[in-house]
Amino acid sequence: MKVLVLRLGHRRIRDQRTTSHCGLVARAFGANEMIYSGEKDDNLEKSIKNVVENWGGPFEIKYEQNWKKFIKNWNGKIIHLTMYGLPFQRFMNKIKKCKDLLIVIGSEKIPTEVYHSSDWNIAISNQPHSEVAALSVFLDKLFEGKELQKKFEKVKIKIIPQKSGKNVEKTDNTIS
Amino acid sequence: MKVLVLRLGHRRIRDQRTTSHCGLVARAFGANEMIYSGEKDDNLEKSIKNVVENWGGPFEIKYEQNWKKFIKNWNGKIIHLTMYGLPFQRFMNKIKKCKDLLIVIGSEKIPTEVYHSSDWNIAISNQPHSEVAALSVFLDKLFEGKELQKKFEKVKIKIIPQKSGKNVEKTDNTIS
Repeated sequence: MKVLVLRLGHRRIRDQRTTSHCGLVARAFGANEMIYSGEKDDNLEKSIKNVVENWGGPFEIKYEQNWKKFIKNWNGKIIHLTMYGLPFQRFMNKIKKCKDLLIVIGSEKIPTEVYHSSDWNIAISNQPHSEVAALSVFLDKLFEGKELQKKFEKVKIKIIPQKSGKNVEKTDNTIS
Repeated sequence: MKVLVLRLGHRRIRDQRTTSHCGLVARAFGANEMIYSGEKDDNLEKSIKNVVENWGGPFEIKYEQNWKKFIKNWNGKIIHLTMYGLPFQRFMNKIKKCKDLLIVIGSEKIPTEVYHSSDWNIAISNQPHSEVAALSVFLDKLFEGKELQKKFEKVKIKIIPQKSGKNVEKTDNTIS
């Protein structure tokens, strides 16, 4: 299964950290790529690429000015995560069987056509919270927790889990 | 079970939205309260209180300058969510049996004593991602998904879930 995340309406200053968190969550929770639209943001791209460079991949971040065209050309299913949608629990069995998934998340106002272009408008609870939370919980349900054991490739830095404190291992992996 | 979230090291400008997302996630995913330390932020408190006022409670947000004292006086168990910790899966059965839980999340640098004061330093994967994601996934595991059906009290606004589009109901609940 190929899973892409489409983050709509990025604003360089206001969304800097939340979009960055979305990208990190997309990578850590098993998605293959994050595409973002709105304002192009070189610092955002650099910071995500830096994480991939050090902590491993594959994972890509790409800018897409014309998200409508991107959605139109997308060959798989489209899932829009929205607090206004139906409970995700109803559709997870179907969704898990899909081949390619595009998960659309917004920042502020979402254009009406996103609702109409999506195969599923689904809610991770109908309460106001966070696109970062919605994305992480959705991916965790999609991959049934297995994503949390994902092995990354070309890893330069990794954590040796500790009961208390920090232990970071640097591997010389420049050749691989 | 009483569940409190302690958000450390809040910075008014840089963390405005991520701390706000942490507060919204804490409420939406079943915690009773979020305490934050660092810089006092009236706008943050106002925005969370506004959500509680409209979307229901009970849920509280409080500022605590002296988080060390707060931790010291805490009578329940302490869980520190950190990418450096042990896999959370190992401890969930034990954690679910606790009476009162304090979940500590950081922004940037976490003082060493947080690691030492915590009963469990646990990781929602050892990859870099987001405290918002860590908190939401942890609470979802803790409450086994039941938190997503939580009924709030004194609700003025609620969503009627839709297949497509938005449907928001305003209830005249000023007397209750």
